[in-house]
Amino acid sequence: MKCLTNCSQILTLKGAWKKDGRNLTPDDLGIIEDASLVCDHEKILWVGASCELPSEYKKVETLDMQGQVITPELVDSHTHLVFGGNRASEYAMRLNGADYQEIAKAGGGILSTMKATNEASKEELFETACDRIERLYSYGIGTIEIKSGYGLNIDKERELTLIIDKLKKKFSPRVQIFNTFMPAHAIPKNFQSGAQYLEQVVYPLLNELAPLGVIDAVDIFHEEGYFGFDDTKKLFLECRKLGLKVKIHADEFGDNGGAELACEFDALSADHLLCTGKKGIEALSKSPTVSTLLPGTGFFLGKPQANARALLDAGAKVAIGSDYNPGSCHWDNLLKIASISAPQYRMNQCELWAAITMNAASALGFRNQGALIEGLTPRFSRFNYSSIDEITYHW
Amino acid sequence: MKCLTNCSQILTLKGAWKKDGRNLTPDDLGIIEDASLVCDHEKILWVGASCELPSEYKKVETLDMQGQVITPELVDSHTHLVFGGNRASEYAMRLNGADYQEIAKAGGGILSTMKATNEASKEELFETACDRIERLYSYGIGTIEIKSGYGLNIDKERELTLIIDKLKKKFSPRVQIFNTFMPAHAIPKNFQSGAQYLEQVVYPLLNELAPLGVIDAVDIFHEEGYFGFDDTKKLFLECRKLGLKVKIHADEFGDNGGAELACEFDALSADHLLCTGKKGIEALSKSPTVSTLLPGTGFFLGKPQANARALLDAGAKVAIGSDYNPGSCHWDNLLKIASISAPQYRMNQCELWAAITMNAASALGFRNQGALIEGLTPRFSRFNYSSIDEITYHW
Repeated sequence: MKCLTNCSQILTLKGAWKKDGRNLTPDDLGIIEDASLVCDHEKILWVGASCELPSEYKKVETLDMQGQVITPELVDSHTHLVFGGNRASEYAMRLNGADYQEIAKAGGGILSTMKATNEASKEELFETACDRIERLYSYGIGTIEIKSGYGLNIDKERELTLIIDKLKKKFSPRVQIFNTFMPAHAIPKNFQSGAQYLEQVVYPLLNELAPLGVIDAVDIFHEEGYFGFDDTKKLFLECRKLGLKVKIHADEFGDNGGAELACEFDALSADHLLCTGKKGIEALSKSPTVSTLLPGTGFFLGKPQANARALLDAGAKVAIGSDYNPGSCHWDNLLKIASISAPQYRMNQCELWAAITMNAASALGFRNQGALIEGLTPRFSRFNYSSIDEITYHW
Repeated sequence: MKCLTNCSQILTLKGAWKKDGRNLTPDDLGIIEDASLVCDHEKILWVGASCELPSEYKKVETLDMQGQVITPELVDSHTHLVFGGNRASEYAMRLNGADYQEIAKAGGGILSTMKATNEASKEELFETACDRIERLYSYGIGTIEIKSGYGLNIDKERELTLIIDKLKKKFSPRVQIFNTFMPAHAIPKNFQSGAQYLEQVVYPLLNELAPLGVIDAVDIFHEEGYFGFDDTKKLFLECRKLGLKVKIHADEFGDNGGAELACEFDALSADHLLCTGKKGIEALSKSPTVSTLLPGTGFFLGKPQANARALLDAGAKVAIGSDYNPGSCHWDNLLKIASISAPQYRMNQCELWAAITMNAASALGFRNQGALIEGLTPRFSRFNYSSIDEITYHW
């Protein structure tokens, strides 16, 4: 048991927690000034103003936070951070007006990362991922989702999932890693359809790895020309049989019913949601499925952003993820991405904080963290500032 | 004399230089691979592929750049970096829906920075500015414009201009500082009009300081409700008499003819340009006045961005500045701001690089830097990457 004292502020998100991360107002922030927090390894036992610390905790070992601000732990619930190579020239080509086809012709696009990833050894992939995780941790991010999906064949996808598992073990408990199985990320050239690739690569591997307990969730790139409605539904049914949670890349290029499908299958989250229409928004607003926005991708590609306000106003549970990956969003700093997006998204301060803590944790099924209140897991981030306001002010 | 060898790439911007920074295409980048650069303190003597180094330079002292990339020096041509206090709570209030009036009522807005700046000692202002300049320098920015304008009374504005002069002397030649006199930044409450403030504060101080040779240019916040057409014109005429160059904050809230006025007076630059109409764009396209865009401010305030493409397509000379200041853009990393804006602005790679080097230097009247070609001043930035593409790829 220990007592964190001398916190200039603790952001509890107490009100937001009560409202399950929906319909949030600044009053739901639950900021405590000159605060302390008592916890053991498993649970928060007490949070409040330091002057009100109950006498029973006065002899507990103290940790002087020296005026830092404590917030619920930052969670990046959408990354693709195990990859080989980089795609710097593609960003330049895009600036210079090249379209998707020209980039693909010049050897760019996701298949170039597939190539570089397949050429990289598992040691190399593990080491570069470790560096990336440490960098995210330095930004205050303590829970990180990582998707496989740049192997795109049985052997390399198996390797990627096992690398993520190894990362999870290495970094636990300091960094909590969530292993998302996503070979259904693109269709390699040697397959004629998404369905064929699912049959020959995804299902066999899924059935091999699921019993090992290494998969935390399964994700799919649901989009016209990639994996269509029937493909996604079949994969989700397969996951249901195996008792696996699902996630989905939905409505990035068009309104493809991805949001509704996600809700139908109680997906942990539906991500991107740039083109989600009224039906999808309504479904998300009534569902436990988290709506995960990835504004960094819009910035990186110079594309429009999702209609965050429509989702928030409908009562959806909104998270922000980085989408950190080498092609469409080479930007790994979730806190900065969220700070820069919030004014455009017209999110209030509580919606912003919930989006990168509580709701992002919920998008990974971690229902026991995301607020700093009694009984929850003591996962928090700390910042060398004297107020919550400053954390998002220093761009 | 020295020879920089072993540069993986040198970005010369040779083509862009020939075109005076206008109508640029990626072909104007002038990238040389495996390159060297020979210079003395004043001039670049030779730039080219290392294997073509003329024999006369083979015995010159060499500096091994270890594969770094060399670019023309990054120039931030628009900052307000001498200020007291911070306005973190204002960013939060704005997220939470507060408008300009509510922020002002809560003690926020520019007048709150005026108060904090007036309360700060000159030593404090100097020291915090030094830290900020070092941070900018760490991003690769070697020439920095700094505006006065948070004193808003004769004594403090004099002090600010002299602080900037002291910074200039301290950092020269490593960092080149440009001193912009801008007491016409806002109208303090104790004045009835912009005209009255100009008469009582700006003109007397201008006439006192101009003979000291500390002012590099004069700037004004030209906007309805602040300083109007007659005010700006009168100030510009006064500057013409004193032989001082001018700059202008123009068309940020509305199309107020600021761009045309800037061109009429051969201003070094017209900055912001969010609402500039056809006439203004046409005037800028035919003028040596640089069009300086400040996208960080749009991001920070959640506002629309300037129509960069219209200016570029018309043939205007476009620069990007940070607008680093405590209220409307607390973001000091010009390279990141430009990398993040370029996809939205639909700028090509050469337009992007010229905007933060050559054209930004031109916005400060430095007509002898901004490209790495023979005869120009050897001011360059270096980056630990192996290609130009990577510099703007790592967000």
